[in-house]
Amino acid sequence: MDVMVEILKRARMLDEKVLSYLEGGEPDKLVKAVRHYPEAGGKRLRPVLAMVVADAISGDSEKVLPLACSLEIIHNFTLIHDDVMDDDPMRRGRPAVHALFDMPTAIIAGDAMFARAFEVLAMTEVPHGRMRELFTLVAHTVWEIAEGQQLDIDFENSDTVTVDRYLNMIEKKTAVLFACAAKGAAIVSSGTEDQERMMWEYARLLGLGFQIWDDILGITADQEKLGKPVGSDIRNGKRTMIVLHALENADAERRELLLSILGREDASDEEIAMAIQTLDYVGSIGFARERALEYADRAIECLECLDDSESKDLLRELVVYSVKRDL
Amino acid sequence: MDVMVEILKRARMLDEKVLSYLEGGEPDKLVKAVRHYPEAGGKRLRPVLAMVVADAISGDSEKVLPLACSLEIIHNFTLIHDDVMDDDPMRRGRPAVHALFDMPTAIIAGDAMFARAFEVLAMTEVPHGRMRELFTLVAHTVWEIAEGQQLDIDFENSDTVTVDRYLNMIEKKTAVLFACAAKGAAIVSSGTEDQERMMWEYARLLGLGFQIWDDILGITADQEKLGKPVGSDIRNGKRTMIVLHALENADAERRELLLSILGREDASDEEIAMAIQTLDYVGSIGFARERALEYADRAIECLECLDDSESKDLLRELVVYSVKRDL
Repeated sequence: MDVMVEILKRARMLDEKVLSYLEGGEPDKLVKAVRHYPEAGGKRLRPVLAMVVADAISGDSEKVLPLACSLEIIHNFTLIHDDVMDDDPMRRGRPAVHALFDMPTAIIAGDAMFARAFEVLAMTEVPHGRMRELFTLVAHTVWEIAEGQQLDIDFENSDTVTVDRYLNMIEKKTAVLFACAAKGAAIVSSGTEDQERMMWEYARLLGLGFQIWDDILGITADQEKLGKPVGSDIRNGKRTMIVLHALENADAERRELLLSILGREDASDEEIAMAIQTLDYVGSIGFARERALEYADRAIECLECLDDSESKDLLRELVVYSVKRDL
Repeated sequence: MDVMVEILKRARMLDEKVLSYLEGGEPDKLVKAVRHYPEAGGKRLRPVLAMVVADAISGDSEKVLPLACSLEIIHNFTLIHDDVMDDDPMRRGRPAVHALFDMPTAIIAGDAMFARAFEVLAMTEVPHGRMRELFTLVAHTVWEIAEGQQLDIDFENSDTVTVDRYLNMIEKKTAVLFACAAKGAAIVSSGTEDQERMMWEYARLLGLGFQIWDDILGITADQEKLGKPVGSDIRNGKRTMIVLHALENADAERRELLLSILGREDASDEEIAMAIQTLDYVGSIGFARERALEYADRAIECLECLDDSESKDLLRELVVYSVKRDL
């Protein structure tokens, strides 16, 4: 099974559906801003995850589509606001919403998408009496994403971030929306209580593993695969799990060396190589890799609550992909 | 009946309740940012309206409290984002959220409040099978508020705004949230279909009248009552209904005169007086006043669907207040 082929097959099925929920309204500028990121395509991992979980539980991936699309719309709204806050001019190879239009339009477009996401969520056919629960799940997830975004921003100016606090931050900023997609799909598909709990945990661990692997690739992948210069995470001074582990565990001399290179835009390629060597020597890259693989193993164990099916296989392959991929 | 006393009595009852829904979470900075505007008090017109409508329909204003508080939280979230977009440093005599903290925190705090509002909304006890409808009502209302905000921003750089387009803008930016509060209260209170429709229309007209009266006060009220210098709406070039009517209806000479003063920060007090005289001469202030009073009359007619009660009286007085108040 080529997991990327399977994901993209489903992602392309979702494209039209997601965009169909983002039609209508005024003025044109707002509607264009709202559709700008969703029109760029992408892997649509969150709604695909919801579809595959629903299929694995009930054999029906149709009923979960409104929920799935609402989560994709929420994801895109958080990207718009993230880009405003970071003043990132580009996203997915296209201008960011605030760069293409303006800052107020980007803020409003994000808010409007959040509102529309709940309108779409309300179209989901939910087993008797569980509407309230599904709404609470999604709303609370967005609250946690906001917490994660705020923690992430605060970390940039903090010297006291630990590996555990970092994990809490990426769990909120990234993993909970995966978890919400999988648990929400279990609710909509009338899964058992055990399946709901296990799907949440599966996707939470998947999200954590995915993010940590991202951090590893940011250090070790070559420029061609990464799409950005080697060492840019180091030059940006990004406090990833790897860096945090090294700062906690390196001896004084290596710690000083790292701190003298981290966050220096003008660091030379030799300095970058030295920083990477140091991260490796301290065992921080290995630490992150082990942690990602541990999450992956635990995620796969969560799948035991599902009957065998192609969708279950895909959920397993998705984990393997998330911590083995080289881009 | 002193309508302001009645409103404030209910508003102070809501204070604690609203803030109780904004507790918990991390980091502290985010929680402080989220509570900053709600802690400043205010008239809490939207939740008070929901309480009074609920009481007028069912004699019970308790059950509507989660819905009422969620709308107050939504209102405050839109204020935070509005202040970021306009870069207004102050709100209710205190620093704006983005001024007290920073722009990213203000954006995230608004998003977080929107999420929390839906968590609170989900706590509302709703008549059987109508949860979905209530969610759709609130979510669609926020979508329309976003449309109103975008239209408002676009109008600042447009020469083709008409009175009708202005009314559409203020309906979305302001009136729909009033309407949502009143209709939502009718749904929660098991009102009749007629009452639901009439409460929506009542509050929509109330909101329109309120906003138009605000525009009139912005031109005619004296400095002490207005809390800002006379003529500041004119110096800011604000395209209110009055100004739009004048630009549509004045002869060429008076139109030129108005355009030469509108939006000029350095306009003298004599020029401001001349502009106001012109608005009056063209009949634009009278036009706005008549329109506000017409909306008020129609709003009061909508109350016929309610049995007599003190709450019904208060709803009537609220209309009278909204278009007679001098601050």
